[in-house]
Amino acid sequence: MANRAINFYAGPAGLPVEALKRAQDELLDFAGTGMSVMEISHRSKEFDAVHEETISLVKELMNLPSNYKVLLLQGGAHLSFGMIPLNLMRNGRKADYIVTGNWAEKAYKEAKLVGGADNIRVAASTKEQKFSRLPKANEYKFNADSSFVHFTSNNTVEGTQFKDLPKTDKPLICDMSSDIMWRPFDVSPYGLIYAGAQKNLGPSGVTLTIIRDDVLEMCEAQDLPSYLRFKLHAEKNSLYNTPPTFGIYLLRNVLAYNKAIGGLKVIEQNNLKKGELLYGCIDRHAGFFKPFVTEKADRSLMNVDFFLPTEELTDMFVKEAKKNNMVGLKGYRDIGGIRVSTYNAVTVDNIKVLVDFMDQFVKKNG
Amino acid sequence: MANRAINFYAGPAGLPVEALKRAQDELLDFAGTGMSVMEISHRSKEFDAVHEETISLVKELMNLPSNYKVLLLQGGAHLSFGMIPLNLMRNGRKADYIVTGNWAEKAYKEAKLVGGADNIRVAASTKEQKFSRLPKANEYKFNADSSFVHFTSNNTVEGTQFKDLPKTDKPLICDMSSDIMWRPFDVSPYGLIYAGAQKNLGPSGVTLTIIRDDVLEMCEAQDLPSYLRFKLHAEKNSLYNTPPTFGIYLLRNVLAYNKAIGGLKVIEQNNLKKGELLYGCIDRHAGFFKPFVTEKADRSLMNVDFFLPTEELTDMFVKEAKKNNMVGLKGYRDIGGIRVSTYNAVTVDNIKVLVDFMDQFVKKNG
Repeated sequence: MANRAINFYAGPAGLPVEALKRAQDELLDFAGTGMSVMEISHRSKEFDAVHEETISLVKELMNLPSNYKVLLLQGGAHLSFGMIPLNLMRNGRKADYIVTGNWAEKAYKEAKLVGGADNIRVAASTKEQKFSRLPKANEYKFNADSSFVHFTSNNTVEGTQFKDLPKTDKPLICDMSSDIMWRPFDVSPYGLIYAGAQKNLGPSGVTLTIIRDDVLEMCEAQDLPSYLRFKLHAEKNSLYNTPPTFGIYLLRNVLAYNKAIGGLKVIEQNNLKKGELLYGCIDRHAGFFKPFVTEKADRSLMNVDFFLPTEELTDMFVKEAKKNNMVGLKGYRDIGGIRVSTYNAVTVDNIKVLVDFMDQFVKKNG
Repeated sequence: MANRAINFYAGPAGLPVEALKRAQDELLDFAGTGMSVMEISHRSKEFDAVHEETISLVKELMNLPSNYKVLLLQGGAHLSFGMIPLNLMRNGRKADYIVTGNWAEKAYKEAKLVGGADNIRVAASTKEQKFSRLPKANEYKFNADSSFVHFTSNNTVEGTQFKDLPKTDKPLICDMSSDIMWRPFDVSPYGLIYAGAQKNLGPSGVTLTIIRDDVLEMCEAQDLPSYLRFKLHAEKNSLYNTPPTFGIYLLRNVLAYNKAIGGLKVIEQNNLKKGELLYGCIDRHAGFFKPFVTEKADRSLMNVDFFLPTEELTDMFVKEAKKNNMVGLKGYRDIGGIRVSTYNAVTVDNIKVLVDFMDQFVKKNG
């Protein structure tokens, strides 16, 4: 096997090597067909088996009740930002958005554009704090006449993550692109979950969307282009049009691997361990590494942002890490510093290597 | 190398084995990164090189003038059906649609839904002929106040293909999903060309869109969700959002292979030879194989539909072909019979094997 890099990219991001190896082995001959999985009809029995298995694995791993549909779409979170208000905000419906980061704000702006500026209200925002924390319990102002509450479970750019849900009885609609399946959770407060696959699940070009029946019934979109209608995709089991077959296949490989290692419970244990190690290191060197996120309770287990004392040291950190086979550590352009993305495919051992490197780096330069 | 099937699927369809082999070889270690191409950031220099090379190869192979932009999008032809009227049909603009098949009709219906029923006119339709031929020159009724004329260059389901363009001085907007790059052609009458990659170019999940500057300027879509705006994608070089990186990479592999074998001129020669062989066989056994398309001039070089004397013989044909390693020959559900899809990746030798099989089949069963 090739010498694999230790991949801390924020997305597209690393995938379990086992899922990739499986794809490599059968790239020219899938399931004894003598063809690549990307060369066969999306209506063939061989692809259909992959499609159904992918949906089943999502249901099984997330323990979805029977009133949720699993859709496999295209266009990433960006297209979903528009599809959600286009489908759901008919009949004068209104919505609350929680604005906690770069992506949450994009979702909010698209909703305002499409759903009508007056119909979209900010239930809470931490923009004044540069999104360096999540809203506190007393900062939420939910509107009683909203049909749903939108939030972003993990803020990829800033490195905050909701551990507890916003307290509302309205259906939650959640961009879970950067932390879906990071641990087991109760899906019942969610009306709709969407996630571009390219952070925690698979390659870019597949959007996993999970929608509850009552929210699906809210979709009144007969005058929208067919591709934008959640209801049509649900009715046609995501085979209304040609789906991104190879992306779905790779997603299947990742989910099958996740199941094989013990499912989301084991993944959670790994993620908690990774967080302990990495935040432990940052806190141990509190005079040297300064976290971007101000509240420990809000710290993300998926994206960890911190600063070094100077820009020179930051550059050196990134360069020396690269020499040590670690990539993707440069912080997001608007924030700077270092960002370590620690999605499911990043192993505990990967984090140990990074933490050793960080300890050494402080020793030499601290 | 695995024993490869002879792949006549209508799409997703066969790809050059060289393009797949390249992907297989570097699936775990792309460009010396120690990562798969699908694991690296879409803003990394390694992916950027793939992205730029893909766009350059499109320009080079199609000999595009500098006033055309190449976009790499998602959602296939289905999403484009909606995006085109949403972007172009502002300010009371009207359009003519040429309805020559199953897919052309879908494009027309989506445009009516989105662009306003009265603004979309049928310039010609062969629906009464069950789309078994293209319109004759005297059957077109173009409207002088239309801003563009939409047509479908190759009708995948029915097996007709435009060899000459509809005669209009309006910008042509063309769904070229099933015959893009089948031969060299003068792009200058086209204002916008779009093609789902999964027939002639690559895997599903990538839409190649080529748009002329004056048509791009017609796009007034500031109130549309960002993902639906051609102008935004053009301004951001298709990197506004995370593109389907693996699909683009595979498209690059196919285009690089197409260039290596001599470009579209050589591909055209192969396609003409394939057509001669296959239609030659059908015509040689005219009492046995009955073509669906009624006019020889309209015959597609990409999809070839024909009937056998009985359904039993049709089933036997499909089954025996499969025993002989040939797949994807079952006709489209609404038409029945046999459909042979002979996209660029189907070789002259593949067609020779099929034609030998057909000759033998007639001998035994004719």
